[in-house]
Amino acid sequence: MFRPRLYAPGPVEVPPQVLEATARPVLHHRTQAFRELFARTRARLAEVACVPGDDVIILAGSGTAGFEAGLLACVPRGAKVVGVNAGKFGERWVKLARHYGCEVVELKLPWGEAVDPEAVRALLREHPDVQAVMSTHSETSTGVLHDVQALAQVVRETAPEALVLIDAVTSLGVAELRPKAWGLDGVFSGSQKGLMTPPGLAFAWLSERAWARSEGLNPTFYLDLRKERAQQRAGQTAYTPAVSLVAGLEVALGLLLDEGLEALWRRRERLNGAVLAGAAALGCRPYAARVSPAVAALYAPERVSAPAIVKGFAARGMRIAGGQDDAKEHLFRPSVMGYADRYDALTIVAALEEVLLELGQPVALGQGVSAALRVLAG
Amino acid sequence: MFRPRLYAPGPVEVPPQVLEATARPVLHHRTQAFRELFARTRARLAEVACVPGDDVIILAGSGTAGFEAGLLACVPRGAKVVGVNAGKFGERWVKLARHYGCEVVELKLPWGEAVDPEAVRALLREHPDVQAVMSTHSETSTGVLHDVQALAQVVRETAPEALVLIDAVTSLGVAELRPKAWGLDGVFSGSQKGLMTPPGLAFAWLSERAWARSEGLNPTFYLDLRKERAQQRAGQTAYTPAVSLVAGLEVALGLLLDEGLEALWRRRERLNGAVLAGAAALGCRPYAARVSPAVAALYAPERVSAPAIVKGFAARGMRIAGGQDDAKEHLFRPSVMGYADRYDALTIVAALEEVLLELGQPVALGQGVSAALRVLAG
Repeated sequence: MFRPRLYAPGPVEVPPQVLEATARPVLHHRTQAFRELFARTRARLAEVACVPGDDVIILAGSGTAGFEAGLLACVPRGAKVVGVNAGKFGERWVKLARHYGCEVVELKLPWGEAVDPEAVRALLREHPDVQAVMSTHSETSTGVLHDVQALAQVVRETAPEALVLIDAVTSLGVAELRPKAWGLDGVFSGSQKGLMTPPGLAFAWLSERAWARSEGLNPTFYLDLRKERAQQRAGQTAYTPAVSLVAGLEVALGLLLDEGLEALWRRRERLNGAVLAGAAALGCRPYAARVSPAVAALYAPERVSAPAIVKGFAARGMRIAGGQDDAKEHLFRPSVMGYADRYDALTIVAALEEVLLELGQPVALGQGVSAALRVLAG
Repeated sequence: MFRPRLYAPGPVEVPPQVLEATARPVLHHRTQAFRELFARTRARLAEVACVPGDDVIILAGSGTAGFEAGLLACVPRGAKVVGVNAGKFGERWVKLARHYGCEVVELKLPWGEAVDPEAVRALLREHPDVQAVMSTHSETSTGVLHDVQALAQVVRETAPEALVLIDAVTSLGVAELRPKAWGLDGVFSGSQKGLMTPPGLAFAWLSERAWARSEGLNPTFYLDLRKERAQQRAGQTAYTPAVSLVAGLEVALGLLLDEGLEALWRRRERLNGAVLAGAAALGCRPYAARVSPAVAALYAPERVSAPAIVKGFAARGMRIAGGQDDAKEHLFRPSVMGYADRYDALTIVAALEEVLLELGQPVALGQGVSAALRVLAG
């Protein structure tokens, strides 16, 4: 018998008190009780997003809905934009922008690489009329954390009018993210990753200059951030909100704020670092040039199939992610960004030892776990 | 002390076993366990929607997202459409179609009236090039149940090419609805009404001829029914689904199917009928010309303010809806479409007696409840 464990880069394990909150009797969304819950949740969300007091819009939908709403809220159809495509999600935003008729100047990088801000500078010099630069922060498909602070600085210097729009789906609540200090213009995320809530909510924050863009915009009917902002400031939503998920989110945000943002970011980094160190001691190299704390993207050892590793974890009740597209055969991706502590990091490494042994690798039991323990003790 | 009771026309009271299911540990959406849950839920949903075996698409979003997805899946931008506007939601779909550049021929009715199919015939004769007719089935703002069977027949006879697109947000699982037998082309709904699940899921069904329309379509990136259909047939979704709400929905659908669709429709009608009869005995006339079982839309007695009645219910822990827009002062709307039985219908009437007494109305205690009991005994 195994206790099921969700060690995927989202959806993640959700704390029991958050699950309990989602199972409370449903509140009507036009009541004072919900208005207060919603206002409290929005205030906490803004704190966790490092934009205290600002509007972070909560939508019923997936992270993709959040990015779509954000793009349409500040980029006119047909605009020229730069899209950093260094993985599955970067690619998704390129497709999204093209869907709306944007001319996308694509900065395509090999999977696993982090964006070089100077490459963006060169592109912007060629295309000074770019209206936005889109990038993921934590690219889940490759485990890369892009340096969006440096990216934003280059954009400010080279194309001051261009907005910087960031997919923070797996970085919000996981990695250091300072939208205002870093000069970002749009940050979009979802409930089921670092915020430890079931999937079904999308989040969107815009900078003042992004809100001020109004020329030629054409949001969808459902995903209209301005309509939502007006409503949400009054404790309402334009359409029926997913009240139960909001109730869970409020509790989850409380847990994160109790820990403190900087402590949280440090802990996330250390837990993920322990998994990476343990895996390295077992011959599994990291895939990402610049590691995101949201996920340990790991190469399977030579001659070992990554899907067999994923299967080995599944046989132990543990859900980790495999590689996507071309990376399928050699990549596997455990994550400790959910409701997980240091013992979960150790558990992942211990299971990896067992799985590699089963697959015929010469592993001495404890070899990875000791390395992970040293990181945790550090 | 009062036990809180949700007697609003959505979100509704959710059965505890459904709440329990939403609070189970989160499933990863790319697992066999979720694929099976999702397939089972989709099969049950198709049965409850009276289209067994068909694709009913499940989206993370509100009912509005479902209607938007449906409209864009079969109506090209710029098309001419008829919009039946007989309340808040009919008005919403007119706005939606205009948002996408449709030329909307509006059939505007006074609130409380049901659509006369012959009026639609006359409009279609004037505008034989109409590509779709949009209407609500149960118009929640007025408590009207439109005869969409007769409406569809008129459309078939007069403009055979026009699609019939129906907002079934508060009729699915509540009122008789036979999409195929009635010749409907699109049926859209949400989780938080007759399906007794927390809000956050939208549903969309299309007829074969609606799916066959592909000329000039332009869905949004997130709300793309064809992309979803391809994924959902394989037990997947295009974007991360709201897995916890799906788990709750599966349980709720099981409860509805155990009762049986026809028994369910009859019971819903009887419960709502009991509320209407009790209210009538207390001097509260029904607002709707053709009553929807989803909600008892009631006129406050002469010289009584409807918001005061809503407030009186609130003081007893009961959330009912007031009137919207111009109907605010004289309309109130309790609903028994959620997890509610005959004793909830009686409770609503008993509370109404008390509230009217408090507001100075000459009510004899038991006057309304007896009338309601007679309907329930009938």
